[in-house]
Amino acid sequence: MATTYHFHERPVFPQGFRCASRHVGLKPAARDLTLFASAVEANAAAVFTRNHFPGAPIILGRETVREGRLQAVVANSKVSNVATGAAGVANARRMAAAAAAELGIPATRVLVSSTGVIGVPLPIEKIEAGIVGMAGDLQADPLVGAEGIMTTDTHPKALSVAVGNAVITWVAKGSGMIEPNMATMLAYIFTDAALEAPVLDALLREAVGASFNRLSVDTDTSTSDTCAILANGLTGAVDLAAFREALVAGCTRMTELLARDGEGAEHLLRVRVRGAASDTEAHVVAKSIVNSPLVKTMVHGADPNVGRLLMAVGKCFACTIVPGSTDAWINGVQVVAGGERLPFDDAVVRETLAREVVEIEVALGVGTGEARAWGCDLTKGYVEENAAYYSS
Amino acid sequence: MATTYHFHERPVFPQGFRCASRHVGLKPAARDLTLFASAVEANAAAVFTRNHFPGAPIILGRETVREGRLQAVVANSKVSNVATGAAGVANARRMAAAAAAELGIPATRVLVSSTGVIGVPLPIEKIEAGIVGMAGDLQADPLVGAEGIMTTDTHPKALSVAVGNAVITWVAKGSGMIEPNMATMLAYIFTDAALEAPVLDALLREAVGASFNRLSVDTDTSTSDTCAILANGLTGAVDLAAFREALVAGCTRMTELLARDGEGAEHLLRVRVRGAASDTEAHVVAKSIVNSPLVKTMVHGADPNVGRLLMAVGKCFACTIVPGSTDAWINGVQVVAGGERLPFDDAVVRETLAREVVEIEVALGVGTGEARAWGCDLTKGYVEENAAYYSS
Repeated sequence: MATTYHFHERPVFPQGFRCASRHVGLKPAARDLTLFASAVEANAAAVFTRNHFPGAPIILGRETVREGRLQAVVANSKVSNVATGAAGVANARRMAAAAAAELGIPATRVLVSSTGVIGVPLPIEKIEAGIVGMAGDLQADPLVGAEGIMTTDTHPKALSVAVGNAVITWVAKGSGMIEPNMATMLAYIFTDAALEAPVLDALLREAVGASFNRLSVDTDTSTSDTCAILANGLTGAVDLAAFREALVAGCTRMTELLARDGEGAEHLLRVRVRGAASDTEAHVVAKSIVNSPLVKTMVHGADPNVGRLLMAVGKCFACTIVPGSTDAWINGVQVVAGGERLPFDDAVVRETLAREVVEIEVALGVGTGEARAWGCDLTKGYVEENAAYYSS
Repeated sequence: MATTYHFHERPVFPQGFRCASRHVGLKPAARDLTLFASAVEANAAAVFTRNHFPGAPIILGRETVREGRLQAVVANSKVSNVATGAAGVANARRMAAAAAAELGIPATRVLVSSTGVIGVPLPIEKIEAGIVGMAGDLQADPLVGAEGIMTTDTHPKALSVAVGNAVITWVAKGSGMIEPNMATMLAYIFTDAALEAPVLDALLREAVGASFNRLSVDTDTSTSDTCAILANGLTGAVDLAAFREALVAGCTRMTELLARDGEGAEHLLRVRVRGAASDTEAHVVAKSIVNSPLVKTMVHGADPNVGRLLMAVGKCFACTIVPGSTDAWINGVQVVAGGERLPFDDAVVRETLAREVVEIEVALGVGTGEARAWGCDLTKGYVEENAAYYSS
């Protein structure tokens, strides 16, 4: 069933989209302000965090996206403008207005994002001053925009793929406080295909449900999660089925990039659960495995302590689990049969656990439900970054 | 309401209880087999893990405790006898029989526990050979038994307190794979008060619900969790209300000892949530805070990144959370008011986060529900221990 997608070796933008990023003084030296713009208004949809403490940009973004039309995205890193009250929302509006003035478009067509420390006032004057002239910087490399939204990411993340005459481009950042419930921290999808806003909304929700919402770096759901899609229609109609499949594929690939670049991560963890009582139960079990600190440290140390897989499956109290019908594999090496650890060669399992990509497959043998989930290992690097994130 | 309990400076056993521990060859050198015995049969109750892959000792233990009578506990460390199938259960029975033969009592009066690596066959011959003569080692110090059940614990854990003429003694181990759902990994409670088994069962479930089940070191629920209480009646009747209160107090204190000695831990985390829509919702929020890797690393680094508290509260999607009515304190210093981070002095919050005990209090302002939870910080030591647990 799965089409193989050839993502461009170096990502490109669809027709009409460009971006720019600058250092405006929020970070010590790195780029901290990014602008994405379409030459014409685009149909749009977005999903946001379900966290009860949404950031000011989320509060404003829900209002902005209601009309299903966007022409630009402005995003800053370093300060997330969360837990900042009415002053925070006013600052988010000023940020939209500044981008709109720079681009000569209405502020209601600008989506605002902020990512970084929670609870610190947004230095809006620096953003207003720094954005002046940025329209002149707009250029064709999505990685320039990706760089400006990075926090603890180790590299900028962008992907693009052709679908018929159209192109779809993803630009995202992830890293920590990542167990998205709607979308990952910040992910923007651009296309020049012509698609109506309600269609985009449905496609986006489906793709996010199968990808970003199956990702967990650390079980913590950000207050700033945003995933938006903009379709400016410059290449006209697109085959809907092909577009839909490509959208899911790109969201899935971006999910893997975000997982692999989770804070401190050294491995990408891919989990597949099948034979569950339902897809929902398969998802619960897959998330339990991908979130277990003991599974994550087992992978980190390439320690063949595979009993921990059974522990992680077994703690899904509300799921149907029959020990005698439970099998498990690591990168295709069977390590559990009928709920018992097989007498495998430790060296073989050590070797496969040491690979950069570790795929764990669990067959529950009680039904036809299945699900996938993505995550990463737990390392001293994660602890180090997060014990001093505010202070550094 | 809370009575202050004076736990004995050096724990003692109730009348009639003694213990012994030995090195029988499971670990390289440390004590790895422990025996607890009562001079006479005791009424008893126990709760076990809810993990779907219970260890062989749990399968046998559920059968044993059904009669409400125990006279001894035999426990080994290093190998947990989990995911070992029918052979594992047969080995657990042999372990009960060996202890029973040594003590001259029926095997049906012996509770068996094993703790350590999952999925490795129990070296039952070493246990059967090593236990011979152990009845002659039985003596009065609970810490001797506590030492024999340690895995990655950094010190043996025992407590005792007087209630009228009776004594209650707790012996436990914890450390990793600790989010008990019934009881912590291994906790034994001994008393010389006279109490019927059904009363013990009710008291134990209540106390465990308010203490061990509110503890999480790492969100991972062990396959071996066991908490048992033995009442041999040697001091006769006890004031039930006083006994009940002391039982909860001791279980709570032991919960704090286990949290503080979580793998790699350097801080004890105490969380209180009040003003929730219900006690259940308060519990969900308290657990979310105590389990958040970003809150745990914030405490570890004494980094005043208190917005993470709001993130952890806000990701309780199913709970009633009103940002504008949410307040929070760290060791009594208010850091959040009405859902916004207060402009506090960073140095003050840094200082209080650096203390060994960090108490986080959150008032949700939406009802009267309240709950407590206990945990610890997340450190590089946790990662280090668990990246090579099987191999070391």
